[in-house]
Amino acid sequence: MIPYLCLYNAILTFVLLMPAISKKGLQMPESPIRKLAPYAEQAYKENKKVYHLNIGQPDIKSPQIAMDAVAKHSIDVLAYSPSEGSNAYREKLAGYYKSKNIAVTPDQIIVTTGGSEALLFTMGCIADIGDEIIIPEPFYANYIGFAKASGVAVVPVVSKIEDNFALPPIEDFELLITTKTKAILICNPGNPTGYLYSKEEIQKLAKIALKHDLYLVADEVYREFAYDGASHYSILQEAGLEEHAIMIDSVSKRYSMCGARIGCLVSRNPKIMATALKFAQARLSPPTFAQIASEAALATPQSYFDDVLEEYTERRNLLVEKLKEIPGVNIGLPKGAFYCIAQLPVKDTDVFAQWLLEKFDLNGETVMVAPAAGFYSTPGAGKNQVRIAYVLNKESLVKAVDILRAALESYND
Amino acid sequence: MIPYLCLYNAILTFVLLMPAISKKGLQMPESPIRKLAPYAEQAYKENKKVYHLNIGQPDIKSPQIAMDAVAKHSIDVLAYSPSEGSNAYREKLAGYYKSKNIAVTPDQIIVTTGGSEALLFTMGCIADIGDEIIIPEPFYANYIGFAKASGVAVVPVVSKIEDNFALPPIEDFELLITTKTKAILICNPGNPTGYLYSKEEIQKLAKIALKHDLYLVADEVYREFAYDGASHYSILQEAGLEEHAIMIDSVSKRYSMCGARIGCLVSRNPKIMATALKFAQARLSPPTFAQIASEAALATPQSYFDDVLEEYTERRNLLVEKLKEIPGVNIGLPKGAFYCIAQLPVKDTDVFAQWLLEKFDLNGETVMVAPAAGFYSTPGAGKNQVRIAYVLNKESLVKAVDILRAALESYND
Repeated sequence: MIPYLCLYNAILTFVLLMPAISKKGLQMPESPIRKLAPYAEQAYKENKKVYHLNIGQPDIKSPQIAMDAVAKHSIDVLAYSPSEGSNAYREKLAGYYKSKNIAVTPDQIIVTTGGSEALLFTMGCIADIGDEIIIPEPFYANYIGFAKASGVAVVPVVSKIEDNFALPPIEDFELLITTKTKAILICNPGNPTGYLYSKEEIQKLAKIALKHDLYLVADEVYREFAYDGASHYSILQEAGLEEHAIMIDSVSKRYSMCGARIGCLVSRNPKIMATALKFAQARLSPPTFAQIASEAALATPQSYFDDVLEEYTERRNLLVEKLKEIPGVNIGLPKGAFYCIAQLPVKDTDVFAQWLLEKFDLNGETVMVAPAAGFYSTPGAGKNQVRIAYVLNKESLVKAVDILRAALESYND
Repeated sequence: MIPYLCLYNAILTFVLLMPAISKKGLQMPESPIRKLAPYAEQAYKENKKVYHLNIGQPDIKSPQIAMDAVAKHSIDVLAYSPSEGSNAYREKLAGYYKSKNIAVTPDQIIVTTGGSEALLFTMGCIADIGDEIIIPEPFYANYIGFAKASGVAVVPVVSKIEDNFALPPIEDFELLITTKTKAILICNPGNPTGYLYSKEEIQKLAKIALKHDLYLVADEVYREFAYDGASHYSILQEAGLEEHAIMIDSVSKRYSMCGARIGCLVSRNPKIMATALKFAQARLSPPTFAQIASEAALATPQSYFDDVLEEYTERRNLLVEKLKEIPGVNIGLPKGAFYCIAQLPVKDTDVFAQWLLEKFDLNGETVMVAPAAGFYSTPGAGKNQVRIAYVLNKESLVKAVDILRAALESYND
């Protein structure tokens, strides 16, 4: 029996010698956009041209003034910056906010590595393991990732395509508030919905935050992208929210500088700022070159934004008009950002999106869309929706929608 | 009674209207180095010259080739890079590791925003809330921050100044291992100790990791800084650890590019890589400009490292020799990194370090040191120790130690 026992021990040892992945790691969501990547790779290999309607990477040029500032750097020792970001940048940033009618001091700004890190710091400051954050759904998919990483539960409140994804009734929020609820998180203008909250809607949210003593966190990275003359109303413009409002921002979309990885956390609550600073100190500092670019970008002339806004408005109009012509497609008119959610006449857009890449082409061309289920946390929600980003030029957008129309005509699910 | 009741309600409402900071946020440690900053600020205001022995920011120039690469950039749209880092960079990085006798493929590397993020991803992948990671103490203070942020408990195993901070006996580790223990984390060469683990010590750690099915995580960001002809032995050079070894790296110290914020996580465990990629995708990408600098830095000539090593060796020798001349000071000979722990003839170095800035000067000059208690998690440990970084030129180092000697002579605690 001895040899068998040894073998058994050897096998047991072998089985043991595989340390486990954490539950947290297993629960981290895959990117709903990036999980289609292998099928896109395959399409490239088959020499298909793929129109990317799936990503939030704008094709707009970054401001020349920002790119030049980096090219002109004269750094000898690429040193750590202060953990809260360089003083010069934070001072100028306060000036930018002032121009947007948001009165904040440099002390109320911590520069982060992208809006992503600002969200991670925020969750760390306001929520403990098992605490809950209410988010109108559909929402930016990575909110789930930051919540999982922080041990926080996302509680979705449903906003509806038939309402153009407007703020759900306040009663819907109140039904979800428990002793574990720490915050309401919104994205305004919204990714993936393109919805721009009105001043009245922000005020409704402010009231409920005050009433239930919750933080109101707003991801305002698409602030500049408000169309049809609508103006963006920041949670920091609302009086009485000093202790409650935490704003997340980023240069990624504003200046088409996604690769900079510079964002910020802005709050007038000194305890939040002191706590967020501790998270910031642990990771030492935000990237130096990108802070140079971001500081210089603040001098971008208004004409840059006017041009970008005009371009996106035209793209949106074209996209929505063309999509509406497709039988069975349902889409509203997004007022902000550069995304929209479209409902398609298919059962499951995960399957459809993969089919588009794997099985379909129109004269050697196809499109890649982001299945919307990944933007919902309610199981089964958004199955027949996709997020479309209008980050392609108009000519490409027209071609992409034509391909989508032809695909829907030949698709059977 | 009605008006009183209203007032009471009003007060109650006011009290309620202060949303709380999370326990996690309250428990996040302040930087032991940065908490003295206000006293340094005050010293500057009094026109004192302060010699900074407290920080890990090298004064060495970043490689010109890396700074030039950024200056020569021709980026139009500063786009996201792949979440795992640019392919070109990861391929060249695998080549760098090969030159260090570490055989890894680009797929076994995820580029992170500093070594900090690599540590955060690692903790997310391997440990759940309440799990434990054993770390030889004293250790890099921010390990506590990443652990708190991740909900993980740090369990210290004491290494001693009288042993020059060598690896504690393996029995000491075994006494601490519980069902909650997920990993042993080392820093090699060590910050703050300057200790370089021998191949034999790494092999002892490998054995215990395999025996108890633990991950072995090594922060090897000071790899290049090994003195007296000693060579660094990486955990990735040890056979049989494929599933267990996770290596943390960074360009910060290697190329004196702390402000780049580029690091990486390296492992041959495919499950770890797949899980870490999900954390990486949630934050989109590491910074683009800094990846350009880091990729270019890989072509830094060996002469750069030879010069740096010679300079640091001279600094270390000078520092240790001068410190040993001070009565009551105890210090070993660090074999790596650019730190050492010195035991001073004072009761509490937190008080002493503040006194140096607030109350002391020698001809208008003083020094700033890092109290070592912040590098210990055992309460009361390291109270009479400081961490000294030899990131100043030799002339300044001599002056700084002279000031320290004079300070100790006039200090009474």
